[in-house]
Amino acid sequence: MLDRIFKPETVALVGATPKEGKVGNTLLRNLMASHELRVYAVNPKYENIHGLRCYPSLDAIDDDVDLAVIAIPAVNVPDVLVQCGENAIKNVVVISAGFKEAGREGAVLESELIRISKEYNLRLVGPNCLGVIDTYANLNATFGRTMPDKGCIAFLSQSGAFALAVIDWSKAAGVGFSKIVSLGNKAVLDECHFMEYLAGDSDTKVIAMYLEDVSDGRRFMRVASRISKTKPVVVMKSGKTEAGSKAASSHTGSIAGSVEAFKAAFEQSGVVEAESINDLFDFALTLSRITSIKRGGGVAIVTNSGGPGVMAADAVEEYGLKLASFERNTMDKLLPLQLANSYNPVDVRGDATSDKFGTALEIVARDERVSAIIAILSPTAPIDFDKACTYVLAADALKPVIPVFMGGASVTKAVEVLNQHGITNYFDPVRAVKTLKAVSDYEEMQARVYEPPQHFDVDTHLIRKRLQQKQALDYELLTAYGIPVPAYGKAVSADAALEIADRIGYPVAMKILSPDIVHKTDVGCVKLNVYREAVKENFFEIMRRGEKYTSARRIDGVLVQQMIEGGREVIIGMKRDRHFGPLVMFGLGGIYVEVFKDVSFRIAPLSKRDAEEMIHKVRAYRILRGVRGEPTSDINSLIDILLRFSQLCVEFPEILEADLNPIKVLESGCYVVDFKMVTRM
Amino acid sequence: MLDRIFKPETVALVGATPKEGKVGNTLLRNLMASHELRVYAVNPKYENIHGLRCYPSLDAIDDDVDLAVIAIPAVNVPDVLVQCGENAIKNVVVISAGFKEAGREGAVLESELIRISKEYNLRLVGPNCLGVIDTYANLNATFGRTMPDKGCIAFLSQSGAFALAVIDWSKAAGVGFSKIVSLGNKAVLDECHFMEYLAGDSDTKVIAMYLEDVSDGRRFMRVASRISKTKPVVVMKSGKTEAGSKAASSHTGSIAGSVEAFKAAFEQSGVVEAESINDLFDFALTLSRITSIKRGGGVAIVTNSGGPGVMAADAVEEYGLKLASFERNTMDKLLPLQLANSYNPVDVRGDATSDKFGTALEIVARDERVSAIIAILSPTAPIDFDKACTYVLAADALKPVIPVFMGGASVTKAVEVLNQHGITNYFDPVRAVKTLKAVSDYEEMQARVYEPPQHFDVDTHLIRKRLQQKQALDYELLTAYGIPVPAYGKAVSADAALEIADRIGYPVAMKILSPDIVHKTDVGCVKLNVYREAVKENFFEIMRRGEKYTSARRIDGVLVQQMIEGGREVIIGMKRDRHFGPLVMFGLGGIYVEVFKDVSFRIAPLSKRDAEEMIHKVRAYRILRGVRGEPTSDINSLIDILLRFSQLCVEFPEILEADLNPIKVLESGCYVVDFKMVTRM
Repeated sequence: MLDRIFKPETVALVGATPKEGKVGNTLLRNLMASHELRVYAVNPKYENIHGLRCYPSLDAIDDDVDLAVIAIPAVNVPDVLVQCGENAIKNVVVISAGFKEAGREGAVLESELIRISKEYNLRLVGPNCLGVIDTYANLNATFGRTMPDKGCIAFLSQSGAFALAVIDWSKAAGVGFSKIVSLGNKAVLDECHFMEYLAGDSDTKVIAMYLEDVSDGRRFMRVASRISKTKPVVVMKSGKTEAGSKAASSHTGSIAGSVEAFKAAFEQSGVVEAESINDLFDFALTLSRITSIKRGGGVAIVTNSGGPGVMAADAVEEYGLKLASFERNTMDKLLPLQLANSYNPVDVRGDATSDKFGTALEIVARDERVSAIIAILSPTAPIDFDKACTYVLAADALKPVIPVFMGGASVTKAVEVLNQHGITNYFDPVRAVKTLKAVSDYEEMQARVYEPPQHFDVDTHLIRKRLQQKQALDYELLTAYGIPVPAYGKAVSADAALEIADRIGYPVAMKILSPDIVHKTDVGCVKLNVYREAVKENFFEIMRRGEKYTSARRIDGVLVQQMIEGGREVIIGMKRDRHFGPLVMFGLGGIYVEVFKDVSFRIAPLSKRDAEEMIHKVRAYRILRGVRGEPTSDINSLIDILLRFSQLCVEFPEILEADLNPIKVLESGCYVVDFKMVTRM
Repeated sequence: MLDRIFKPETVALVGATPKEGKVGNTLLRNLMASHELRVYAVNPKYENIHGLRCYPSLDAIDDDVDLAVIAIPAVNVPDVLVQCGENAIKNVVVISAGFKEAGREGAVLESELIRISKEYNLRLVGPNCLGVIDTYANLNATFGRTMPDKGCIAFLSQSGAFALAVIDWSKAAGVGFSKIVSLGNKAVLDECHFMEYLAGDSDTKVIAMYLEDVSDGRRFMRVASRISKTKPVVVMKSGKTEAGSKAASSHTGSIAGSVEAFKAAFEQSGVVEAESINDLFDFALTLSRITSIKRGGGVAIVTNSGGPGVMAADAVEEYGLKLASFERNTMDKLLPLQLANSYNPVDVRGDATSDKFGTALEIVARDERVSAIIAILSPTAPIDFDKACTYVLAADALKPVIPVFMGGASVTKAVEVLNQHGITNYFDPVRAVKTLKAVSDYEEMQARVYEPPQHFDVDTHLIRKRLQQKQALDYELLTAYGIPVPAYGKAVSADAALEIADRIGYPVAMKILSPDIVHKTDVGCVKLNVYREAVKENFFEIMRRGEKYTSARRIDGVLVQQMIEGGREVIIGMKRDRHFGPLVMFGLGGIYVEVFKDVSFRIAPLSKRDAEEMIHKVRAYRILRGVRGEPTSDINSLIDILLRFSQLCVEFPEILEADLNPIKVLESGCYVVDFKMVTRM
């Protein structure tokens, strides 16, 4: 579908100009640099530019135009778009700025672009973008001054200036790209459209993205999940300022911010997240040739200098990777070389020649238990880096090798040769190891098999009715979803309270029922461990306090509830994220959530595996499992609650925030002892 | 003292050779490259080398030799050292390998070097090292092929190969050094000697080190503490494998490893720790010109591209730094420039010229609330980096500016100019921010005023006697040091137990007294909440179980102890680290230590401030302060215990590991309810 954007035969540039330094001029030069391309300049002010005939408008071009590139003042763009539509030009790149990013008037103009694009079914990139590049089609439809080298990484950037910087840097760093897309305001085409296209692009092995937001979180997750199964997707997301709100009325609301939602979404979709620009391209480059380091074994380190070898080994441990333990045969072969260390990390010593290094490297690469090798070389006198380079390439044919040739001028030539083979050299062994960690993360995510969320049959009739009538939701909501709550009853009189309590058995808990009182305990509207003689008295006190607190507002009575003894307290919560929808949180109650922020997140709907992972991921999981001979907790019941709660959150978008807190997890069974909810009324 | 090592007038090279590619040849060429230097070649095999007269031995040189460089087989080094001594040559660099690093025989040879050095009072660098460099004296006494550029960083490296890599890299990166020392085996001179010398070296602004261990931990801390007050010391320490032992009998022993000891030592000594090579030089370079970012305000960001600006702002928050909030006046001046954002981060927009960028930069640099600026530029068409460079230099005269010129070829020339002014450019804004975090850490450590540890008068007579008699230490040890324990008595009979319990008041705790039983609870030798009627029965049971467990070993009776109700449980422990001595640990008891590893470390002796910081640093500190209206705990009593315990650990090196666990911290007062100790007997 988007093929003609990247590989057009004919391009029209609306806004072409002979004025040096102008965007319309640089674009024209860049387009004309591709000799396979028929370029049409459009500008009513000129008859020809740089020897090229110039057309007054798109209408005047007597050819099928595959792609129109528009670089004229924003106000004139809608008219040109209509011309595109009328002339059956389906692919448009709008370079012009002055749209949504420029304020209200611009936003109106942009919605105009969207409307016209829909009407004529246009595939529009931008507006407010740098343009697009396809190195293999030799297409540079940007106003950047540099054409990047060919490579296997496709780079999508939500910042045009950043794309410029990356292109400029890439030439010096010897990094190449298959395609570069500046997404601009993403009025029509967004990251998902391009990801889908790139999934089938044989020039692209890895999709790297710089994103500031996503157009549609759910669609992003769907698309990314599918694509990341076969092609690594690496994202650097900036703009993490949207933290959880301190003023939120639920625990979950105060902890869960946009960062947590994006992290969960990326993880669930198999997207590798990069925390910095270095990481973004380190990860992309490594993932373009290494996608597995676990099959078969672990990481081997071969070095001619002990210190950096130790740094790498430290980092392998720190990043949770595994050092390969060699086969017996490998050690037998290494031993005659008289190395400083024949175990992993293999230290060939500072006096080793490149040949000796190469021999050790090959022996290690032939070890079945080795899945990747970090090859570290300091510029000692006997080392010839050009020679070492050929050894690295040879070993890389057996097992992926990450070279750490530590030097400047000494290594320049070797690094260039490595780059030509798509192999990145690192100066810092720690950075080399970190990229392997990204591979390991990708591998883990990729191994995940999709599980559809379990569906529970729920009669939601009563709940919908209540919501329509703007009535408060209480324990019926949970019981409707099969979420276990302690036995309870609602009392509107002291006598009724006593009757309910008698039925439940003593002691009981008593709590106010009012949609207006969120922090019930804080206003003295919760009484625990109430025995028969105190039921009536407590009923009156709770009502009195409640009335005092809510003044003229709604009080629905007092909840009388069975007391649950013992068990571990956990919290399950949800906050509706503006990009991804229900963000579910799990953690152990109280201190663990508040002080240690020891919680895990997933976007609902949850699969059983998601629920399990959420529980296993919190550090306090050990407490649930039972430390020091204490009883274990019923994890299966907890998983069940997570799944039912997930469905509840998906089915009722009216619920904005919710806390099931505390949930008491017993040796057998769980009970949601209290809950809070914020609904959109 | 070491001045003649770096700035000799005469150098003798023992092991000079005309054979190309040999160490003795490269060394000779490097030394001869310094025209100010009188070089004497020593080798009985040659009459002259490269036109230089060659002497058969040091004895034959008729001149005062300031420095001897020795590059001959290890076995011959001792004889040459004696010659040095006899000829009053006081400074020696031993390049030769084959000493401690090469096994037992080498170690014997090395102790010979140490003996001779002591006898003749020689200042010996190495052995097994690359040599030393002084760029300002134009001295290259190494066998590396490259002389680094002049700069203000002194670099000490425990790995010669790594030093080679750094020198090679530095030329390409435009980084310069004042001095480089390859420490080798540190037989005589070690990191401390050089740190002390460099403290007074006017060519050196920052001391950067790559260390694999320290020769003497306590001395290292003393020296580093003193020097870091005036000159930043940055260390990358590798070899973190020595983790806490899982088999340790104390909690502290199982958590505290060599990593924790080094981290604590660095922090207490004002040393900035780097986790990677990138960090090591990033930090050193930034600290060579910026040592304060807190005085006056916060970090300002000026950018021509929104995305990278946001990345930088995110990183500022993530690293716990402060974004400057501008003065009113600054915003008034920025407003007419019609920027995308006049607040911090200041976004001058993609269409801004270098002049506009420069204007904004200057306005921000004049803001009193700004203490450092990150200046980010993407290579947009209107940006001229050479011009932008002059603006950065101008602004840097007002406030330190860290440039993030994002590009490759476009920025090369500007980056070179910046380097010439000692200013490092970063491609990645996150890395730029991280270096400011190092500045902030340094600033905090530097601001710490030395406090001598408080001394408590303790009568240690009884304890020493017991240790001499190899008797077990118990609660007397703590009470001798004024560490509060619950009221107690020791009973060797059931009647005595009852008598003691009557005196203390009920309920009481009863515990076995035996140096052989460490985990008393596990073997059923602890009874809690014992009332009068059960005292005798429990006495017998504890004794029976104890006898069963220890078979023929020592049981000293039963401890009858007052029960302490309520309070928070904390743990204070110590493990004697092989480099630094008593490493004291603090944490909240049970789960917080075991699951969250929420503990803090300091090397004893502790100052009051150390003790306070240890308590404040654990995340669970909030629990001690009292969450949700719960009572606060008596932090002052806890500090007092930490200080007394610290003195105890310092005064009794016989104690190898100790846990005061649990300590009950009440609203008023603390009690050490139980303790374990491992002593060297």
